[in-house]
Amino acid sequence: MTDVRPSHRARIPRDREHDYTDEMAHKRQAFVAEQTGAGLDHVGRYSIDPAVLPGNVENFTGVAQVPLGLAGPLTLRGEHARGDFFVPMATTEGTLVASYNRGMRVIGECGGARTTVVDDHMQRAPAFMLDDALAAREFGRWVDEHIDGIRAAAEATTRSGKLTYIGQHQIGPLRYLRVNYTTGDAAGQNMTGKATLAACEWIRENHPDHPRYVLSGAIDTDKKHSQINMLMTRGKRVVAEVTIPDEVLRRLTGVSTRQLFEYRQVGMAGAFMSGAAYNGAHAANGLTAMFIATGQDAANVAESHSGVTYTQLLENGDYYWSTTLTSLIVATYGGGTGLPTQRECLEVLGCYGADKVHKFAEICAGVVLAGDISLTSAILAGDWVTSHDALGRNR
Amino acid sequence: MTDVRPSHRARIPRDREHDYTDEMAHKRQAFVAEQTGAGLDHVGRYSIDPAVLPGNVENFTGVAQVPLGLAGPLTLRGEHARGDFFVPMATTEGTLVASYNRGMRVIGECGGARTTVVDDHMQRAPAFMLDDALAAREFGRWVDEHIDGIRAAAEATTRSGKLTYIGQHQIGPLRYLRVNYTTGDAAGQNMTGKATLAACEWIRENHPDHPRYVLSGAIDTDKKHSQINMLMTRGKRVVAEVTIPDEVLRRLTGVSTRQLFEYRQVGMAGAFMSGAAYNGAHAANGLTAMFIATGQDAANVAESHSGVTYTQLLENGDYYWSTTLTSLIVATYGGGTGLPTQRECLEVLGCYGADKVHKFAEICAGVVLAGDISLTSAILAGDWVTSHDALGRNR
Amino acid sequence: MTDVRPSHRARIPRDREHDYTDEMAHKRQAFVAEQTGAGLDHVGRYSIDPAVLPGNVENFTGVAQVPLGLAGPLTLRGEHARGDFFVPMATTEGTLVASYNRGMRVIGECGGARTTVVDDHMQRAPAFMLDDALAAREFGRWVDEHIDGIRAAAEATTRSGKLTYIGQHQIGPLRYLRVNYTTGDAAGQNMTGKATLAACEWIRENHPDHPRYVLSGAIDTDKKHSQINMLMTRGKRVVAEVTIPDEVLRRLTGVSTRQLFEYRQVGMAGAFMSGAAYNGAHAANGLTAMFIATGQDAANVAESHSGVTYTQLLENGDYYWSTTLTSLIVATYGGGTGLPTQRECLEVLGCYGADKVHKFAEICAGVVLAGDISLTSAILAGDWVTSHDALGRNR
Amino acid sequence: MTDVRPSHRARIPRDREHDYTDEMAHKRQAFVAEQTGAGLDHVGRYSIDPAVLPGNVENFTGVAQVPLGLAGPLTLRGEHARGDFFVPMATTEGTLVASYNRGMRVIGECGGARTTVVDDHMQRAPAFMLDDALAAREFGRWVDEHIDGIRAAAEATTRSGKLTYIGQHQIGPLRYLRVNYTTGDAAGQNMTGKATLAACEWIRENHPDHPRYVLSGAIDTDKKHSQINMLMTRGKRVVAEVTIPDEVLRRLTGVSTRQLFEYRQVGMAGAFMSGAAYNGAHAANGLTAMFIATGQDAANVAESHSGVTYTQLLENGDYYWSTTLTSLIVATYGGGTGLPTQRECLEVLGCYGADKVHKFAEICAGVVLAGDISLTSAILAGDWVTSHDALGRNR
Repeated sequence: MTDVRPSHRARIPRDREHDYTDEMAHKRQAFVAEQTGAGLDHVGRYSIDPAVLPGNVENFTGVAQVPLGLAGPLTLRGEHARGDFFVPMATTEGTLVASYNRGMRVIGECGGARTTVVDDHMQRAPAFMLDDALAAREFGRWVDEHIDGIRAAAEATTRSGKLTYIGQHQIGPLRYLRVNYTTGDAAGQNMTGKATLAACEWIRENHPDHPRYVLSGAIDTDKKHSQINMLMTRGKRVVAEVTIPDEVLRRLTGVSTRQLFEYRQVGMAGAFMSGAAYNGAHAANGLTAMFIATGQDAANVAESHSGVTYTQLLENGDYYWSTTLTSLIVATYGGGTGLPTQRECLEVLGCYGADKVHKFAEICAGVVLAGDISLTSAILAGDWVTSHDALGRNR
Repeated sequence: MTDVRPSHRARIPRDREHDYTDEMAHKRQAFVAEQTGAGLDHVGRYSIDPAVLPGNVENFTGVAQVPLGLAGPLTLRGEHARGDFFVPMATTEGTLVASYNRGMRVIGECGGARTTVVDDHMQRAPAFMLDDALAAREFGRWVDEHIDGIRAAAEATTRSGKLTYIGQHQIGPLRYLRVNYTTGDAAGQNMTGKATLAACEWIRENHPDHPRYVLSGAIDTDKKHSQINMLMTRGKRVVAEVTIPDEVLRRLTGVSTRQLFEYRQVGMAGAFMSGAAYNGAHAANGLTAMFIATGQDAANVAESHSGVTYTQLLENGDYYWSTTLTSLIVATYGGGTGLPTQRECLEVLGCYGADKVHKFAEICAGVVLAGDISLTSAILAGDWVTSHDALGRNR
Repeated sequence: MTDVRPSHRARIPRDREHDYTDEMAHKRQAFVAEQTGAGLDHVGRYSIDPAVLPGNVENFTGVAQVPLGLAGPLTLRGEHARGDFFVPMATTEGTLVASYNRGMRVIGECGGARTTVVDDHMQRAPAFMLDDALAAREFGRWVDEHIDGIRAAAEATTRSGKLTYIGQHQIGPLRYLRVNYTTGDAAGQNMTGKATLAACEWIRENHPDHPRYVLSGAIDTDKKHSQINMLMTRGKRVVAEVTIPDEVLRRLTGVSTRQLFEYRQVGMAGAFMSGAAYNGAHAANGLTAMFIATGQDAANVAESHSGVTYTQLLENGDYYWSTTLTSLIVATYGGGTGLPTQRECLEVLGCYGADKVHKFAEICAGVVLAGDISLTSAILAGDWVTSHDALGRNR
Repeated sequence: MTDVRPSHRARIPRDREHDYTDEMAHKRQAFVAEQTGAGLDHVGRYSIDPAVLPGNVENFTGVAQVPLGLAGPLTLRGEHARGDFFVPMATTEGTLVASYNRGMRVIGECGGARTTVVDDHMQRAPAFMLDDALAAREFGRWVDEHIDGIRAAAEATTRSGKLTYIGQHQIGPLRYLRVNYTTGDAAGQNMTGKATLAACEWIRENHPDHPRYVLSGAIDTDKKHSQINMLMTRGKRVVAEVTIPDEVLRRLTGVSTRQLFEYRQVGMAGAFMSGAAYNGAHAANGLTAMFIATGQDAANVAESHSGVTYTQLLENGDYYWSTTLTSLIVATYGGGTGLPTQRECLEVLGCYGADKVHKFAEICAGVVLAGDISLTSAILAGDWVTSHDALGRNR
């Protein structure tokens, strides 16, 4: 029984040398059955070779099978992503794939969305603890003056990571350093952690005070949304843009561009008052489905769903719509990207292999834009149907 | 080739009547291969019967296989979750399972964590658009006076949803109603959407002005972190607490409780300055792994990772540690919870079936606490090792 | 010399019995001259009788003379403020009065602004510290069940304060109670502090656990901007609205309503990204000048400057503009409102005496709206002049 | 009568050539009396020569007399502020001066507070509107490459302003430039506005696209609190620090350092949950009183009250307390600083004249620290008295 506390705690079976095997997975399945009465028949049905899993999971016991739907084509005229894409989305939420699909159709009828990665920064942010605020300020200047030594120490730990700049923020005697990197095709949290540790050690050894530090002072905001991410970028800052003719929108969604824009004012006011991480519709939905499908770290949805929608109703009635994701954390190398189903899904997008991460980031932004177009229109079409009034605030 | 735009857009195969079949999944796999050159061999290897998938996904093409590790036992002395739990975690991030496992061991040595659901509210938040601010204010009063009629209309659409209260927030001529419900074992976003639509229609019909509205004015902040969630709760507000003796912490992690508390001050200052959604270590990691394993909507990590850590160093040197998740959105019924691998994982936790959602929420909080203990200690143990100084700011 | 540390610390002269006299003010002026070499000739020139100052200041030494300009007429069609108002503004910032004056002229040409107080809540927010989260939750229920006793205890301490409701927010074992009141014509911070202390004592005595508390758990956010203020109101939530014909705007400011609306999108995106307390132009300027003139507690500008601008461009080209101040803290009774120059300025507005505070709040909102119209137009008129392009994003 | 709308709007008397005279002030006083029935006898009693007021106020009608109390000595061991200071505070809030005075006494018994200006940035933040996100990104690179030309254009407009760096933040096709300056002894909002206008014009002329811009894209957050201010500094970032022995605190306030630190955890959790601008007690109170006394722009309290408190309880029981004001906007030159009473008050602090602004900023921080010590202790002493329990959570 689950809820009865055993007199001595049961230990999950583990083999120090040969743990990544079907045999050990079976042993753990049996252990679970014994301890909890729950069978893991479906969990045990996988096509992955456990031998590929070190570095991805511990105590491997099977797999979660997450249904995968296909949306598309998504037409993009990006810097890196150009053409029509079919997007694998792993989800258990009904209508999600269908809704994104509809948004992609709108984008397609507009000739595609433009997509651009406008910034790229991954960071680790240690806090150095000095004796007082004056010492901390002077320490900060020393860091600026010794950026070359710090950079050399950091970059010695990595082939693809490049230290770009160090942001500094002081509170009392604490000097927080937000060390920024580009990280190639990897998401880069581990790479930047290791590089920053080396940088910190170099600082500690070379600075006359040999100051204490903690490797994270909580302003990298790893796995958390934050305003600093929205402002200063974490991962990729990527924009998707489309200009939607009123006729196209009406035909495909039953909503006018003027309605969209009127509603935008309501939504921006609501998001601002709420202190929301995103003032669009639902970036998290599409990103999560893509992240699970393609082996991204889905926990990064915490940061990646943040962004800013900016729109204008043009004089000709067309609707300019941009979505800016400010902290999109993605990879086409490392983490789960090389696992079997995940790699296949990256290949569907033409994003497996070297120098693909900006292309992938652009596709993510395009997908988010599609989903926001579809959901926003759906909300308004409902309003339209139920409303006795014609459009516009004044009657 | 992926990146070449076809002269006419290819359409994803779809069968209006019999779409949820292996055959159609194969057709779509073949379509993908033809369009993109990518094979979906592993994606096509699943044990799910496609016939169970309507309501979970469209254009079903296969599955993402996400490796599943096992952590535990996690000892809880909660209101609903009592005993030792083995926690299935679906992830591709190495060390995650091992790290949570270590935190669970600390909790176990402390006699387990207490867990409590302290609030429970799911909402949909329409915005009513009145002629001016005065009319909007009077409309708000009318809503308060007609709460019985509104409630009846809303609750007529659902068996398990109960309208608890309506929060009101005004901007200019807009009256945002944040309609709160309890939703049984379901997460409840759809249920509350449907109920609130009925409520809005009732209001529109019965209020003398027949006011216009949009079903979401963006302050429900669905799929987004927000300060309103942190303050007013979205989903479950759940606390996990443990008191850790200094000796236990030192023995298992090499870190003292005094170090933890000193570092807490640094982390709280950093999180506050950053405008972060969480001032603990990494709630998102554990929640995401559990969400994928158990068929939660993983996009809700956007909201669910938010929370507040509150600690005290007691006079005897013990460390009181609480983690409050303010907007944990979970279900043990509906969505993906009934799919094969997902249901098995819920059963491992004893959380499948009726009246289990509070138990599941408590386990989630316990897992987050375990992960924060482990990661925070790891950060500090590194600091400890590298530091030339003894503990304490003053020497 | 200021900067030389005296061997023993000089003490500011003080007379325990007769401290509020010209004589003691002179003594302190002489003391300052002796200690710092600075003369206080102008500071010593005042028409206030020091005898009226107990309760307003300690160690009275003279006055700051803040220049006072006059703006107006401001035409309002509010619920409480109706007619043309001349607004005394105490400031040292050139162009401020002139700019507000211009905005008032625009409002006048539109037939005046509508103003409405839509919510009214002052609060004190103690935190009760229970043994654990479960006890804290149950404590919260107990509070709800004993609201009558709590209210009676609170209201026994005040004639004009009425306890309206208690918001509850839990973190770990802490139950924060945000106790809300209406406070008549006073701002009410002291009144609610005293009433809430009585309420807390009643709770501590009557609750079986006799729980500990602190009178402020920092979520009343006294003298600080906060998102909770923006959401839940602190002081008065007051709206000013006007619909500006394009022709009027062009004639008086050289800017079109379409330009305003285009720019609004830029400003809302910028304010959202910045995590700003207000997404309009400069509420703080007008409020501060009015607060100093009329004896408000000018420190409350910290809270009072927060708000949300919501606008729409109507189909006929008119511009609907609303400003919602979400936490305007004002009084027409108590504090500095009865001092000589301050009272005179309240009388200029017809706001001295009983039942005037809503009228005063409406005037404040109207002034803020005027200032935002003027400054926003000025920014854009600059843009207009320097721009080679006609209006609109697309050319 | 105030509330009756005149058939034609009365106009405030104004003399185009000789408006800054006693005569015109009297005319406006008479006008007010005629229009509103309110006398301005006390408002009309001032010692300022109206001839000095151009650039400070328009439609000068008299003065607000704000009572001025004296607190001190405040002992500082700052970088610029060293010695004992007597602080003029203009306020109408009873107990304010007394409370700050008490906090200064605590600081004095600890040997004084250390104060340090750790950053100094004033900014104006235009938004450039490009054709799309790609053009905006490339524009941003162009700006970086042309920083010398931009700086030269900006600095040509000012003697004391120096352009330090340009922060860039992109949303869609908008490139927000946050242009940072040091501004000598002035607060610098006007100086940076003028310089940035010149910089923008230089950019518009020299960039091949001649892009449109607005001079403020709302991320300078002038006169508003914002998270970007807290992170990136606006005005002076200044720290005050003190280490308080337990014995001193108990003797002077009746509270122990352990109580302070326990409460700090409650306050930090509350401030974090509330989304507050400051996690200390009441920076706004002391700053406002000093700002009014010394001719600062008191509207800047909106930004200046923001900050972060960081504390540690040392092993010996001493309490390390730091207050970091992140966006303190102050001047010792320009604005109202040269007016008679205002200048006298600056002279009392030894802060009138050249190169005094950092000294003044340090005094401000010291005052805030004093006020927070006093108010926090007062809150806790109340708790202490009313509590049946000894200190500490565990009994």
